[in-house]
Amino acid sequence: MTNKSNAAAEAFATALLARPPLHHWLSPRVVAVDIERGTLTVALPYRPELSRSPDEQDYHGGIIATLIDIAGHACLATRLGRRVPTIDLRVDYLRAAIDTDLTATAQIVRAGRTVGVCDVEVRDDAGRKIALGRCVFSTRES
Amino acid sequence: MTNKSNAAAEAFATALLARPPLHHWLSPRVVAVDIERGTLTVALPYRPELSRSPDEQDYHGGIIATLIDIAGHACLATRLGRRVPTIDLRVDYLRAAIDTDLTATAQIVRAGRTVGVCDVEVRDDAGRKIALGRCVFSTRES
Amino acid sequence: MTNKSNAAAEAFATALLARPPLHHWLSPRVVAVDIERGTLTVALPYRPELSRSPDEQDYHGGIIATLIDIAGHACLATRLGRRVPTIDLRVDYLRAAIDTDLTATAQIVRAGRTVGVCDVEVRDDAGRKIALGRCVFSTRES
Amino acid sequence: MTNKSNAAAEAFATALLARPPLHHWLSPRVVAVDIERGTLTVALPYRPELSRSPDEQDYHGGIIATLIDIAGHACLATRLGRRVPTIDLRVDYLRAAIDTDLTATAQIVRAGRTVGVCDVEVRDDAGRKIALGRCVFSTRES
Repeated sequence: MTNKSNAAAEAFATALLARPPLHHWLSPRVVAVDIERGTLTVALPYRPELSRSPDEQDYHGGIIATLIDIAGHACLATRLGRRVPTIDLRVDYLRAAIDTDLTATAQIVRAGRTVGVCDVEVRDDAGRKIALGRCVFSTRES
Repeated sequence: MTNKSNAAAEAFATALLARPPLHHWLSPRVVAVDIERGTLTVALPYRPELSRSPDEQDYHGGIIATLIDIAGHACLATRLGRRVPTIDLRVDYLRAAIDTDLTATAQIVRAGRTVGVCDVEVRDDAGRKIALGRCVFSTRES
Repeated sequence: MTNKSNAAAEAFATALLARPPLHHWLSPRVVAVDIERGTLTVALPYRPELSRSPDEQDYHGGIIATLIDIAGHACLATRLGRRVPTIDLRVDYLRAAIDTDLTATAQIVRAGRTVGVCDVEVRDDAGRKIALGRCVFSTRES
Repeated sequence: MTNKSNAAAEAFATALLARPPLHHWLSPRVVAVDIERGTLTVALPYRPELSRSPDEQDYHGGIIATLIDIAGHACLATRLGRRVPTIDLRVDYLRAAIDTDLTATAQIVRAGRTVGVCDVEVRDDAGRKIALGRCVFSTRES
């Protein structure tokens, strides 16, 4: 099964994000899916518990890595119609995100029989790039 | 200032981990520091909210990435006696961690004037490697 | 000093690529620079000595990594007007390149006071993506 | 087929390294294999054509990346008894290597049904770490 329309894909991705217990706390939300282009966008609203600093409304680096993992996985899993294990994950931190929500847009760059690769851009409310991620997933069917 | 004794280093690292609001929720804890060898170990107790699956006592990949960022940062920051920004972070997922707490042991592999690099091993209660991390930090003094 | 025009930038990058003894053997060539967009493209003609396989006109993975390092470095160094040390380098191999020349297009994604980051796409003659690279350089002035 | 003894493994790895046309020029050489521990060491003698600088007997970063790819691949391929495609490759450059040969020691950290992961340490003649590599290979049998 693969997701054929953007509406079906968005429903699939929304259900996918509702599943992990961690997400009940984190509250990531699917805001856009484009099956044709292989992209999916997840929004993450700011909350003080997500911060590294007690003095600033910033984000812990681990939360940004988590958002990248979520968006990359949702993007590829939605294309494939099934969940896939993460093989590896890389994050490049470009600038601090202060007093803003975040969005992460994932793009499939490879969807092979063995592995899939997604690129992820994390942006703040002003559209500035906060971090870049690249995720590799195992796509092998067992 | 740098931390000269293991006791001073452990007190410094414990204070460092107490600071971020995210850690109040996540509850990572410093369990060992060896200044001479450049290592530091952080323990993370399992809680259901940390899971990816609603059916298994596993860990979300983002939590493992967060633990790696925390351990690597604490290790280098404790050596330097000050916090440092993360430049990039990489995680290789080796096996699922089910029904276990986690420990992450970071080791400094470079502590230069511009950047520092830490390797991190995440293990389960049985000592099996769950994931490997490598973190690069900016050590430039402003 | 920074390179202000595309012509000046291309002359700078061409001189930069002429310098390393390795390049006399490898023969990478600057084919495009866009200072405004922060991009630079390097072409690498195929030669049998660059192959991994004795039976196919393919490329050794190390040659693709080398091409990524060269393009990323030339892109950032041309922007800054000086050579910069590589901190780390990552390569994702997407598909085999058989019986084709290669081009690598680098794009600056960050050019800070401490580090710079470039993304690099390697393509074959048909424009297909062969590999993706991401390079981090130290931009600190000594 | 898998390689059972260190002597058989070393013969296999030596034949593996003799195959790629690139290696005829580069001249990497297997100097140690330990099947039990999952390690393999490749030596690379210095030659002026491998340099980045015309003024120093250093190594181009691409050559170090190539050496890491070769050692990681030889290590896992020797364990499995067959060649495997590289999925991704990462290199952290720790210090310049001047006027020295290099050795790269690879260690298998994962050898699963879908992917295998090797860590690689590159050292100079004095035993100092020059660079760290981590390579992911596809181990799926077609």
